[in-house]
Amino acid sequence: MKLAIIEGDGIGKEVIPAAVKVLDALRMDVEKIPVELGYGKWERTGSAITDQDIDILKSCDCILFGAVTTPPDPDYKSVLLTIRKELDMYANIRPIKPLPCVNGILGRNDFNFVIVRENTEGLYSGIEEIGEDASYTKRVVTRKGSQRIAEYACKLAKSRQNKLTIVHKSNVMKSDKLFLDVCRSTAAAHEVEYGDELVDSMAYKLMVSPEKYDVIVTTNLFGDILSDMSGALVGGLGLLPSANIGAGHAFFEPVHGSAPDIAGEDLANPIAAILSLKMLLEWHGNMTEAALIEEALESTLNRGIKTPDLGGSFTTEEVAESIVDHIRIK
Amino acid sequence: MKLAIIEGDGIGKEVIPAAVKVLDALRMDVEKIPVELGYGKWERTGSAITDQDIDILKSCDCILFGAVTTPPDPDYKSVLLTIRKELDMYANIRPIKPLPCVNGILGRNDFNFVIVRENTEGLYSGIEEIGEDASYTKRVVTRKGSQRIAEYACKLAKSRQNKLTIVHKSNVMKSDKLFLDVCRSTAAAHEVEYGDELVDSMAYKLMVSPEKYDVIVTTNLFGDILSDMSGALVGGLGLLPSANIGAGHAFFEPVHGSAPDIAGEDLANPIAAILSLKMLLEWHGNMTEAALIEEALESTLNRGIKTPDLGGSFTTEEVAESIVDHIRIK
Ligand SMILES: CC(C)[C@H](C(=O)O)[C@@H](O)C(=O)O
Ligand SMILES: CC(C)[C@H](C(=O)O)[C@@H](O)C(=O)O
Repeated sequence: MKLAIIEGDGIGKEVIPAAVKVLDALRMDVEKIPVELGYGKWERTGSAITDQDIDILKSCDCILFGAVTTPPDPDYKSVLLTIRKELDMYANIRPIKPLPCVNGILGRNDFNFVIVRENTEGLYSGIEEIGEDASYTKRVVTRKGSQRIAEYACKLAKSRQNKLTIVHKSNVMKSDKLFLDVCRSTAAAHEVEYGDELVDSMAYKLMVSPEKYDVIVTTNLFGDILSDMSGALVGGLGLLPSANIGAGHAFFEPVHGSAPDIAGEDLANPIAAILSLKMLLEWHGNMTEAALIEEALESTLNRGIKTPDLGGSFTTEEVAESIVDHIRIK
Repeated sequence: MKLAIIEGDGIGKEVIPAAVKVLDALRMDVEKIPVELGYGKWERTGSAITDQDIDILKSCDCILFGAVTTPPDPDYKSVLLTIRKELDMYANIRPIKPLPCVNGILGRNDFNFVIVRENTEGLYSGIEEIGEDASYTKRVVTRKGSQRIAEYACKLAKSRQNKLTIVHKSNVMKSDKLFLDVCRSTAAAHEVEYGDELVDSMAYKLMVSPEKYDVIVTTNLFGDILSDMSGALVGGLGLLPSANIGAGHAFFEPVHGSAPDIAGEDLANPIAAILSLKMLLEWHGNMTEAALIEEALESTLNRGIKTPDLGGSFTTEEVAESIVDHIRIK
């Protein structure tokens, strides 16, 4: 496996090295290609990401990414959005699953759902008219874009509880009718049980009865909002991994950002990055190694080895070391 | 006061009569103008709202509204959105405040914030291109629209804790920079303490630390999502009132919809409608009467008189009667 490794900025420089330690402990045959991107690179070179970087990323089997900080540059184009776009990674997958010995806001662990977010269009089209007195953004919903994300979500549902919830706002935006119709007919064709929810109502219901959902499919910005919000159910943004999948490309990243406020203090929770590595291994077919990470993480949490965001007093490194130790003795 | 009363459909026909009983018990000088709108009217006459209805609404001092059901008509235009637009009610105000003896998902009652939602533009522009293979919605942010909602939010903040949080997604949509800039400079001009949050991050933080917020100002659809979601903090959508305010017009409605599944069974929670009446009276300057409603509601809840959605076994009417009784003996 040829793996690009992007630490990025802020706590990216701590959680990715932690995840790489875990990867090393698994003694797999991996060629690691470090790639520098983000604010630091922008300060040093004037650009946060180059065409050459994109070519390197395209040449790798998959990518492990930390987080980047946005430079104070009005012309700055988001590194994350650039990569998603250039590699046409149309599916953003965010599993929302409780961890042992970690309490979310509900103090419950009877839920387990996945948000499948369309990752290339919607309000992320980049088509804007910016004026002094009025500014516009074009929200784009295409049949092709809706079709491929619906296919992805249905396949995922079939490997789980076979239940799909389509989230939209078609009572206000007629454009969402296209998304809804395509998702409905795709689900019917795949014999996946489906229903739909308005995004406002879904935000409420996810907080009140998260156990009712299996796979949720939605447009780009709705997926962005619902997934961060769902971090509260699990116990923090420091716990959520994600995958960005395209034809032939796969990119794994913690949902959290670069958190400049706590960067450099060895305080950041490495779990989201380590779970992103676990998703990467699953995607690549290394199921045994992925299961080993999960087991090691559970054992670490069961022993109370947690960073301060979870009420613990351990460092980023100590959490990673504990996971590594568990893997080594296996 | 000349008051238009719109029951609408579904549980609107139960919760509005309940609120009107409470109004009657206050023995105020109110001319009540019933207006029929919605699905029922559409079935009977072929249109859910007419120009004449709009004229009547415009001639009233304020409006109390229940809920409407959407008819299965592809050309249907939302009654609610039509009224908001025709009466140019640019501010949608949703107070999120715990009630005594009612538990929200966090089991806490140390928060009290208000969502001030821009109510005329954003993704509700109605400017769409609908095609077979692609559909577009134009998200509109204007300086004028941002200015007036920012002014409203700042005035509200000054009457409260003087704290404003501006919610946007300007890291992805440059159009939101206009909204953010206008809100920032308005807050500075009014000497309101302000900060800002990305909408995804805000959704997370509101669920984790709602006590940190006072007045939240945001664009139309973000306000829609965040306010429904916040219903979970208070203990249910059946509890949230709202106001739609324009120059010379004011419209009060529960945040919940017409709930056809429980309609006609005397089970609906009338609290959101009764609190909407309370907001109406406050807006109109009837502070004593508004306070009396609050006191009567608290006493009712303290005595465990609740509808099934709150774990009680009382009917819509019984809850309303209990509030009425409390008001009568005062
Ligand atoms: C950083 C930002 C551009 C990004 C997004 O909005 O997609 C982030 O919030 C995410 O969810 O990955
Ligand atoms: C019914 C719908 C058009 C409306 C909206 O989206 O504004 C509702 O959700 C609300 O919040 O009042």
